[in-house]
This record gives sequence, structure tokens and C-alpha cells, in this order.
Amino acid sequence: MKIQQLTPELSLKRQLETGNEQQLATVRTIIADVQKNGDAAVAAYTEKFDGVALSDFKVSAQEMAQAFAEVDVQIIADLTEAAQNIRLYHEEQQRQGFQLPLADGSFLAQRILPLQAVGLYVPGGSAAYPSSVLMNVIPAQVAGVERIVIATPCDATGKLPAAVLAAAQILGITEIYKMGGAQAIAAMAYGTQTIAAVDKITGPGNIYVALAKREVFGVVAIDMIAGPSEIAMIADDTAFADEVAADLLSQAEHDAMACAVLITTSETLAKNVQIEIEKQLVTLPRQAIARRSIEDFGVIYIAQSIADAVDAINQLAPEHLEIVTENAQVVSEQIKNAGAIFIGRYSSEPIGDYFAGTNHVLPTNSTARFASSLNVDDFLKKTSIIYYTEKTWQDHAPKIARLARLEGLEGHARAVESRAWRKETI
Amino acid sequence: MKIQQLTPELSLKRQLETGNEQQLATVRTIIADVQKNGDAAVAAYTEKFDGVALSDFKVSAQEMAQAFAEVDVQIIADLTEAAQNIRLYHEEQQRQGFQLPLADGSFLAQRILPLQAVGLYVPGGSAAYPSSVLMNVIPAQVAGVERIVIATPCDATGKLPAAVLAAAQILGITEIYKMGGAQAIAAMAYGTQTIAAVDKITGPGNIYVALAKREVFGVVAIDMIAGPSEIAMIADDTAFADEVAADLLSQAEHDAMACAVLITTSETLAKNVQIEIEKQLVTLPRQAIARRSIEDFGVIYIAQSIADAVDAINQLAPEHLEIVTENAQVVSEQIKNAGAIFIGRYSSEPIGDYFAGTNHVLPTNSTARFASSLNVDDFLKKTSIIYYTEKTWQDHAPKIARLARLEGLEGHARAVESRAWRKETI
Repeated sequence: MKIQQLTPELSLKRQLETGNEQQLATVRTIIADVQKNGDAAVAAYTEKFDGVALSDFKVSAQEMAQAFAEVDVQIIADLTEAAQNIRLYHEEQQRQGFQLPLADGSFLAQRILPLQAVGLYVPGGSAAYPSSVLMNVIPAQVAGVERIVIATPCDATGKLPAAVLAAAQILGITEIYKMGGAQAIAAMAYGTQTIAAVDKITGPGNIYVALAKREVFGVVAIDMIAGPSEIAMIADDTAFADEVAADLLSQAEHDAMACAVLITTSETLAKNVQIEIEKQLVTLPRQAIARRSIEDFGVIYIAQSIADAVDAINQLAPEHLEIVTENAQVVSEQIKNAGAIFIGRYSSEPIGDYFAGTNHVLPTNSTARFASSLNVDDFLKKTSIIYYTEKTWQDHAPKIARLARLEGLEGHARAVESRAWRKETI
Repeated sequence: MKIQQLTPELSLKRQLETGNEQQLATVRTIIADVQKNGDAAVAAYTEKFDGVALSDFKVSAQEMAQAFAEVDVQIIADLTEAAQNIRLYHEEQQRQGFQLPLADGSFLAQRILPLQAVGLYVPGGSAAYPSSVLMNVIPAQVAGVERIVIATPCDATGKLPAAVLAAAQILGITEIYKMGGAQAIAAMAYGTQTIAAVDKITGPGNIYVALAKREVFGVVAIDMIAGPSEIAMIADDTAFADEVAADLLSQAEHDAMACAVLITTSETLAKNVQIEIEKQLVTLPRQAIARRSIEDFGVIYIAQSIADAVDAINQLAPEHLEIVTENAQVVSEQIKNAGAIFIGRYSSEPIGDYFAGTNHVLPTNSTARFASSLNVDDFLKKTSIIYYTEKTWQDHAPKIARLARLEGLEGHARAVESRAWRKETI
């Protein structure tokens, strides 16, 4: 991991995979096919890509029970406790609308309602991601979404990972479909004979899933298209090099495109972290991935001061930020741009990935300047309400008509004035 | 305007203009050019498209003062009062983060901060849109955004509409650039030598502006890409046909692609509205546009009951909904999907466009199922904060490590366990 002096111009931006023309054409073909042929198209793509002919996409109650029984009781307990923590944090985000009384009995209001149906995509492949189930489902449940659907690809025998189904069972989710890729996104966006369409689709996926989400954006809402994971750390000479290195590697192991950056005021720490990274890499099961990430995107920056480090972080706007310094909490208060901040030595980043209660779906690639983690608001919508009485209308109609005419919209002015067209109403 | 029976399958969806390949190629060329050549590129495109060679894009204090003096004092008063109303409604949307204490001194928190810089695009052309200035700027100001920039194309003499500058002056906005089209969007997204980049771009525009906003999405945040205006009305035999017709036409005059729909339980009202539409169209200055909208997309539906009308509206999810029935407020409580609801005879839709205080930037094309009007949240971002003490870490580290290993992420498990690697810390 290279060491260099902190410079004023920093960026975490990487060239993100946006898919090539052929991938996009494939995705468009699949979406059009599912839109036209529904279940039959989903079945055909599932056979083609997942290698299994399914008579029914929906996971049965029996499969759910069986999966739950298969998972170690300790893991069930861990997932249950994590779910409770996540629910607690997200319940703090609950919101209510308001009513604003105006003169003469008129009022304005904002009504906040949950979306009616959302779909969560859970990636399949070599690993199982029960934490994705918790992080996407719980904010929707707290928002009050009535119908929550999960889509996830099965293996060639038609099975889904037991841990994913167990996580769903813990949350009380029963509408789970064995389908993946662009066909799953299309089925949830447009609906099929057996799968009713949803209003929003969230969750991570491969390039085909990401492209499909972009394509259906507007027909349904989508969450962000997340890029590779990022961790930035601010540390001084109170930090321990082995712990810093372990935390940097925890994000580097996600993806060869992941980005791990340390900004430190201590040259000694910098050198020791460099040594520790090499030492720890050797025994890491995902060494190849982590090594590419560290070599291509990992940097240890030496800063003149913590203030300089803070400035750099505000410019980087990293997904995850750990602060391991004296008075870490005071330092954290100066951070304006970061997805999630982990304060102090014991707040290792994976605590947020799995357990603490905050959401692990976070803005990447410097978008923390303007974007937030997945949260309850993502599953709510607001309706404006206007009630004018005759008196209020009468007091303001001339002003509204003038403003409409100023913009050349005579029809708007006449609409407001129309209430006076009939004698009895003046 | 045609009359037909209400059917269970309704949709407001129209084929929206998404731009052709040539328009997209033009937009991409302009964006790349502005990214590379900054001010020089913006100047060149302004000369090409707006027909004026500008030495300085920025509106001067003198121009601002002059514009303000040019606008009728009554209009200044109307805009000022509208701005106060809009501010009042949006101030009700202000939010605060929270801190959630955990055991042993640990805590989670959510910090809510304003975006730092936003850019508002105000369309130019034949008309001036001071109301767009109010509706986009005020939510950002209420959120606490420090830097608010306006971009708007000038005419061939380098002038901007006085009413637009006056509206900006009323709000205290001073950073206004004479630039339009894709070059304005690119300049705000990437920055130039004289224009610093922003974090989010909002505001309506033509197809080039819309395509450019889509292209820079991810580099900056954008608001929705709004489609043509929509109005739906539910009315019974207590409604007056001339008022209903006037309100339908107020949205139809916006755009030939606009959509005006009436759902009524009264056949008499349906027939009278049909007659009134024809009568009022004849004298409407924007008759040609309104007529095309009414002919292509306008429908009067006869419903068996108000309940059926409500079901239809929830399926349509219109941008604007007026309810002119007995007990209109009770009916409004059953509406789940609408951008804004106008209750009762005196709440004519243009009241919301200009004056009442709610936002006129609203979700179109059935996206009210999942989207909201522009609001204060659009200019805020949330950061998650995690602070674990040694004790809390110790209590939960084994669970977190188990969940990480369940997902095949050994590096995550080791990071959490690393705090125990050194004897003295156990």
C-alpha cells in the first residue's frame, strides 16, 4: 500500500462499470420479452441462466420451514438480534405529516404514506447475503409498506440459500420468488401473470441487474446504483496499526475495485500499517481480490494536521469513514460528507455492515455529497393538500390571476376567476 | 372532450419524449466539451444557440437592480406574498437528526445536513417563469443550502426576463448565470473556471436540458424528469360545469401532451362540461395547444359511485387531483396516490401553481405511486453515526464475526476480532 503526502486535490472516483452495448442490448431484450410474455419469459431465462426448469417461482411454506430448520440456532439468534437493532434505529426515522391552518378555515397539509408494494433483489451466486435481506426489508417494514417481495436466483437444483430464507422468515416475509438477473427486475417492474408489479425496486446485483434497474427507472422507483465499497480512515498516533490494517482490508476484500484510504498525521503509523497490510493479506482467504484493490486504489496519506484530514474527507465524501484519533467524536462533528461515520477504536466498520442497526446500503463514489444511506424515507411518499374556503379564494384570486398572466397562462387566470362567473357566488 | 363509462383499467401513461439518438449525441458532445473547455465552451454554445457573445455570464448587481425596478410593484408584492406562503409550508418540513443511546455509553445517531451547493435551471424562451424560481429556491433555502445558483438562457441582446431576476432578488439569490441548455447543466455539474460545481441540479427544461440532466445524474443529484402536466378531477352534481371546464383547461393549456381527466357520477355534469370546454376553448389564447391536449388525452368518465372514482384515481396516480363533491375532505382521505390534492370548489389548481405555499414541482405520469413533490428533504442528506465502546464491542464481536463468516467475508470477521489481538486490550 503506497504512502504519499496529502495533496489538496483528492478523489475517490473510479471508472465504474456501466455496461457495454451488448450487455445493454441483452437487458433490453429480456425486459421487452418479460413485458410481453410474462411468466413464460421468466421461466425461459431462468432455465437459460440458472440452469433449472421451474414449475413454480414462488418459494413454498415448506421450503421456508425447511430452510429455517437447516440454519444453526446461533445464527438464527444473531440474525434476530441484528434485525431488532436495525428496526430500533429505523423506527427513530418514522415521520408524520402536518396540517398548517391558514386564515378563515383554509389549510394546507402534507400527508405521508408508505409505498404500497416494493421488491427487493437479493443477489445469488457463490455466497448468501442474509444481511441484504435485513437491510432492505426492515426500512420498508418500518415505513409501513404492505407488500414486500423478494426476488433471488436459485441454484441449478432449484434451491435458495437457507440463510437468506431464514432471514426472510425472521422478518415475516413470505412472497419470495426464485428468479434473478434482468428478468427478475422486469417481472417486478411490469408484473407477470403470477407476480404483481411493485412500486419500487431496491437491492444490489451484478451489471445486468444494475442495467435493468436503470432501464425500468421511471416505471418504478429504484434505490441507488451502488458502486464498489469504500473505506476512509482518519487516524493519529493513538491508533494501532494492526487494527487499522484489518479494517482497511475488510473493505478491500469486497471487490478488486473497492477503495481503502488512510489519512494519518503519524508517519510511524503509516509505515506500520503498510507492513501490517502485507502481513495480513497473506492469510486472507480473499487475498487476490483484496490485493488488487489495495494495489490499485489503496493509499496512505500523510497529513500535516487532523484539520487537513477532515478537509480531505469532506472532499472525498467516502461511503464509510472511521475516525481513530484523540477526541474522535469532536473530529466527527466536522465531517460534512460521508455515508456513515464510525467513531473510535472499537467501532470497526463491519459492526455497521451486520449488526449495530444503521443501514449498510450507503452512497459510494463521492455521492455522499448529496445522497444518504437507504432509510425509511425511501419507502414513503408525500402528498400536498390544499383547501381554500370561499373567503380565502376571494382574498387571493386577483393575485393568483396576475401571476398566471405574467407567465402567459391565461387559462390558469380564468380558472381561478371562474368561481366568480356566476352571480350567486360573488 | 369525449365521454365514456369508467372502466377498471385506466392509465395516464403517455409515450413521453425521451429524445432521439441525434439529440442525445448532441448533448453528449456539449457536455464533453464543457467538461474539457469550461467557460470557452459555454460561451461558444451560448453564441451558437442563444445568438449572443457574452463577456461575462454572471448577472451583475446593476442588472438585478434594474430588473427589480422594471417590474410592476403589484407583481413584486404578489411574488413576495407567494414566497412567504411557500416558505411557511416548507418550514413545516424542517427536520432534525436523532441520537439513539445504546447500552454502556455506546450510541447510534443520524445527522441531517443540507447539501452545500445546488443549481436551479430556469427555462427561457418566449415566457418568463418567476414561479419556478420560487418553487425551486425556497425548499433549498429552508433546508439550509448555503450556495444556490440559477442558470437561465438570455435573449439575443443578453437580457433576462425582469420578473425572473426580481423573483431571485426577493429571495436574496445573487449568483445567476446567463446560460441555457445542455451547456448550463454541464457547467453546473462539472464546474468551469468561473462557475464552481454544485451537488444537485433541479428545475424544468426542454428535451436537451432533460437529456443533459440524465447524463450528469450520478456526478450530481437531479430532481425528477417531469413529464407534461396532468389534472384529474372527481366531481358530483354539486360541481359547476363552467368551473370544472376552466380548471381542466388550465392544465390542458400547458402542453399538447398534457392530460385532463374528469371522473363524475353525474351524467348531466359530464354533458355540461363537454359543452363548456368547447365554449371556453374558443377564446383561450393558447387554444391550439389546449385543444390538442383535450382531443388527444382528455376524457370525461362516468362513474357508478364516488368509491369507483377513488379507485380509479388511486390507479391513475395523477399529478394534480381536484375533488369537487359533497364531503370532499372525507373523499380526499381515501386517496393514496396523487401528487397534490385540491379539496372543494374554491381550491382551483392554479392556486397551488402560484400562491398557496405547496410546491408546484410534482410527480407526473403515474409516478405519484412512489414519488413526491419537490420538498425540503430533496436538499438534505443523512449520515449514519456509530459509536461502540469497548464493552459493547466485546459483547457483540463474536456475533458480528459469525455473520461475516456466514457470508464468506473472513476479512470482515478478522477486523472486528482485531481489537482483541493485543493482550492488553482483552
